[in-house]
Amino acid sequence: MAASADAGSPTAKPSGGKKRSTGDRVVADVQLPMADLTVPPNSIGGYLIRRLQDYGVRDVFGIPGDFVLQFYGMLEGSDLRVIGATREDNAGYAADAYARVHGMGALCVTYCVGGLSACNSVAGAFAEKSPVVVITGSPGVKERESDPLLHHRVRDFTTQRDVFEKITVAGTVLDDPLTAFREIDRCLAAADRFKRPVYIELPRDMVRVEPPYPHEPRKEEQKSDPDALAHALAAAKAMIDAAQKPVIVAGVEMHRFGLREEVEKLAEAHEIPICSTLLGKSAVSEVHPLHVGVYEGAMGRPSVTEYVEDSDCAILLGTFMSDINLGIFTARLDPGRCVYATSEALRVGHSHFHDVRLTDFVEALAAADLSPQKRPLPKERGSVHDGFQLEPDAALTTRQLFGRVNQLLDEEELVVVADVGDCLFGASDLTIKKHTEFLSPAYYTSMGFAVPASVGVQAANREHRPLVLVGDGAFQMTCLELATGLKLGFNPIVIVLNNHGYTTERFLAEGPFNDIPNWTYHRLPDLLGGGWGFECRTEGDLDKALKAALPNRDGFTLINCHLDSLDVSPALIRLGERMSEVV
Amino acid sequence: MAASADAGSPTAKPSGGKKRSTGDRVVADVQLPMADLTVPPNSIGGYLIRRLQDYGVRDVFGIPGDFVLQFYGMLEGSDLRVIGATREDNAGYAADAYARVHGMGALCVTYCVGGLSACNSVAGAFAEKSPVVVITGSPGVKERESDPLLHHRVRDFTTQRDVFEKITVAGTVLDDPLTAFREIDRCLAAADRFKRPVYIELPRDMVRVEPPYPHEPRKEEQKSDPDALAHALAAAKAMIDAAQKPVIVAGVEMHRFGLREEVEKLAEAHEIPICSTLLGKSAVSEVHPLHVGVYEGAMGRPSVTEYVEDSDCAILLGTFMSDINLGIFTARLDPGRCVYATSEALRVGHSHFHDVRLTDFVEALAAADLSPQKRPLPKERGSVHDGFQLEPDAALTTRQLFGRVNQLLDEEELVVVADVGDCLFGASDLTIKKHTEFLSPAYYTSMGFAVPASVGVQAANREHRPLVLVGDGAFQMTCLELATGLKLGFNPIVIVLNNHGYTTERFLAEGPFNDIPNWTYHRLPDLLGGGWGFECRTEGDLDKALKAALPNRDGFTLINCHLDSLDVSPALIRLGERMSEVV
Repeated sequence: MAASADAGSPTAKPSGGKKRSTGDRVVADVQLPMADLTVPPNSIGGYLIRRLQDYGVRDVFGIPGDFVLQFYGMLEGSDLRVIGATREDNAGYAADAYARVHGMGALCVTYCVGGLSACNSVAGAFAEKSPVVVITGSPGVKERESDPLLHHRVRDFTTQRDVFEKITVAGTVLDDPLTAFREIDRCLAAADRFKRPVYIELPRDMVRVEPPYPHEPRKEEQKSDPDALAHALAAAKAMIDAAQKPVIVAGVEMHRFGLREEVEKLAEAHEIPICSTLLGKSAVSEVHPLHVGVYEGAMGRPSVTEYVEDSDCAILLGTFMSDINLGIFTARLDPGRCVYATSEALRVGHSHFHDVRLTDFVEALAAADLSPQKRPLPKERGSVHDGFQLEPDAALTTRQLFGRVNQLLDEEELVVVADVGDCLFGASDLTIKKHTEFLSPAYYTSMGFAVPASVGVQAANREHRPLVLVGDGAFQMTCLELATGLKLGFNPIVIVLNNHGYTTERFLAEGPFNDIPNWTYHRLPDLLGGGWGFECRTEGDLDKALKAALPNRDGFTLINCHLDSLDVSPALIRLGERMSEVV
Repeated sequence: MAASADAGSPTAKPSGGKKRSTGDRVVADVQLPMADLTVPPNSIGGYLIRRLQDYGVRDVFGIPGDFVLQFYGMLEGSDLRVIGATREDNAGYAADAYARVHGMGALCVTYCVGGLSACNSVAGAFAEKSPVVVITGSPGVKERESDPLLHHRVRDFTTQRDVFEKITVAGTVLDDPLTAFREIDRCLAAADRFKRPVYIELPRDMVRVEPPYPHEPRKEEQKSDPDALAHALAAAKAMIDAAQKPVIVAGVEMHRFGLREEVEKLAEAHEIPICSTLLGKSAVSEVHPLHVGVYEGAMGRPSVTEYVEDSDCAILLGTFMSDINLGIFTARLDPGRCVYATSEALRVGHSHFHDVRLTDFVEALAAADLSPQKRPLPKERGSVHDGFQLEPDAALTTRQLFGRVNQLLDEEELVVVADVGDCLFGASDLTIKKHTEFLSPAYYTSMGFAVPASVGVQAANREHRPLVLVGDGAFQMTCLELATGLKLGFNPIVIVLNNHGYTTERFLAEGPFNDIPNWTYHRLPDLLGGGWGFECRTEGDLDKALKAALPNRDGFTLINCHLDSLDVSPALIRLGERMSEVV
């Protein structure tokens, strides 16, 4: 860092350390205004921190700014770890991934320039039901009185709140100490109940304000309507008992609501085979003896698709009926032959039941006295990657890349974090052994999720080593977030599927707009000052790079894999072929 | 690019070119579905393109996605140039800067994951009155009928539109051919009139739809109320004629509404001295004989501040009364002694006048028969950088950095693009010779604006060579956008003020959250595969780097300037000292 000893020049000279230059003089020992790190437990800021901890939050992602500096000081002084990101949207992705692994995540940003930069990642958390608490600073209540044009203001002081109202499940502005504490309880409870983001705006002059009356957290217990629950259960039992070919399709909410064990209990008690969806992939272990595979319509393996669509009773638990989950709506499921339960709806055949909590229904179903027919598992249950063989000298292809990665997952415990595009489709064929070891924005499909998400994954669990699968287009969006993991000593293995553009789009409409510049991705460590980079053109190159990556535990490993711009994964080929049949 | 000749392996083998692998076979000559590049002039998409051209738009910034591919094909086939960015928010900054230079800008993105990623840059364009047309693809009207869970959907199909309603001045969804054409006219007219962003959503199945009846563009002429205008003018004339010490403060709207010449005419006709604001810096040439300096309250040079605040008739034209413009509200202006005219309000003393267009008022005022007292210019009009002397061996300081840059502006024609933080404050002391050669988000102050903005500047005018001033924190947010300029052969000179964190925040509340990792910024060219990088620790290093940059006209030059983390610009020191007097 530059620091001059020459005091004779006409220029302001910082002399390093805690000295500050003023005009042409040097004033020694000028103290900076240090942030107040005390955390009064009864202050609005202190209470928010305490309640976040009640919900298990241990880390907060974000970037400071002048309207949130007071709360940042408090965070710094608390037991929460503040993880600074390079951009607010990346901090949002990290908080989302943290919530998926840990149960709840938190994002702390400044007013408008910070919050509005995180709209997309928060919207993704809303769409895929990840409980992220968005905390934002804002101009002080007193500052607003004369309605001044403060910097960062867009239209008026409510603009940011108005925007987040559209992409969160609850929101509040803590501008009144009488209601602030109750509002904090309400918003955090909503995030926990609906598994969706909430918005908490903290004006900078309210951070240390204390309540006029003592406040104690209130717990609201949600209950199901017992009669509705009983009738839904009876209807489900009747359909299941009458079924010849039952199958369970476990969705992502089984993970979000911690119902994995209940689903396995239900399956094991009656030997009902289990499938998962792409978004719910790894909600149940894929090496479970009853696991059939990932059901995703035409995109899935035909044996799995036929097995599910041939069922006379598909038990869909916590499953989003989205286009991607359903193979761009190529799935063929007769609602009349489905039990469909999510946190938002409960349907048995064509009968809908209201006021029944997902948790109550799944627990009751798992404990119910059912007697379905035993259904044999499909003969062909193997992975498309069975029989994978490495050809060291062969030019690398997408199929072989995933084959080698699948082999790696046999040897090593890694958490797969897949970005969107063909790396998501290809990843659907990977065999994930443990539950919750696969993360991807498989419904909202926002490019650039994976790299920042990997920071959230390892922040939530230092033992979770992420294996990031990301296309070159997505990597160009958020690759710099590797710097944040570097700072924390994280060690993801990042595989860039470098096919020189938006390849999945080429099969929808090809044009020059699908081409992107080819960067020297493996040189990123030179810029960031850490990590390892590899460049791969053959299967042998990839093999060597992965073998080198495993023992490299003190930083990220970046593997730039050159692929043909028209080479795609087996899953995308399946979808393409089936779609062309349909069309 | 990898391409294998071995057809004997069990893996899908692309054989390069236009062949496509399917399963274990190679099918030769499979044609990709090429985008339809035709532009039917009467289609909704074709009409939108034609009307954008009517307003002078020649370039569109963005990133394609499946919901907008049809329109991308049309753009590609049109006379508009499509400039692909690395991220949507960067594309937004580029379109904003393009609009500031060129009059109107356009952004084209896909549904939600694209649009919601650009919220912050569009909000900034709204706050600072830059007419950016946001064009977004979306699910087809027919696709929406059964309300399916299509990917990229957040809450419901209107979510993105609802969000943009808060940060644009007009918006529409082109889902009905009967109204679509009129709606395009309405939105573009609003962008042009209010100089603010508008939102145009184009469902993917409407792009090529033609109108049921012929449509011709309608021009709406806005007129002032002649009586209100006459009375406002009379009141202004009375105040100005009675004034002993008049001064004009020219704001950014003089540039936005093309009124620079009118302001100079007004000043020259009566020898009224001119100041500008920080956001309006370079709206009038700073070497104009009547130019006094930048007025910014306590942040400005005392001679300028006193000169303006001592005036008995400050004529504020197109000036935002924002905190930054007013030196964090340290400005002392008596409304009773001001003529205040913007596109939103007109006030003479305490009298408000409605229904008067800014353009009409300024033109009338410039043509009016006024007789104010002649007021001598302040004695001290020089720049803080007068008498700058390079000390080659001295460690680089912020003050000397700006001194050298100011010297460079004497020699070379460069467009200064300043990011926020101390590089903005420091830049306020630079002398800008021509008008519109200074760009900065000086009101919304969103970090990361400058690098992507420089792409928009040079896209708007290839002869405008940007000089980018950016802090290390902001550079970490958007530096990768240099790749887009590289693709287009742009040649900005980018100076990174590397003070290892958020230095301006250190003077508000210091804490570890203000520190950021120190990257090897000058190695970025290695990653991007182009451009030149320099590292500077002394004044001599900077001098050499700038001299090397000037002849390097075929790519960007990146200069990593190491600065003490507590070293700040003269402007920030002025503000700090004056604030401490006030507090």
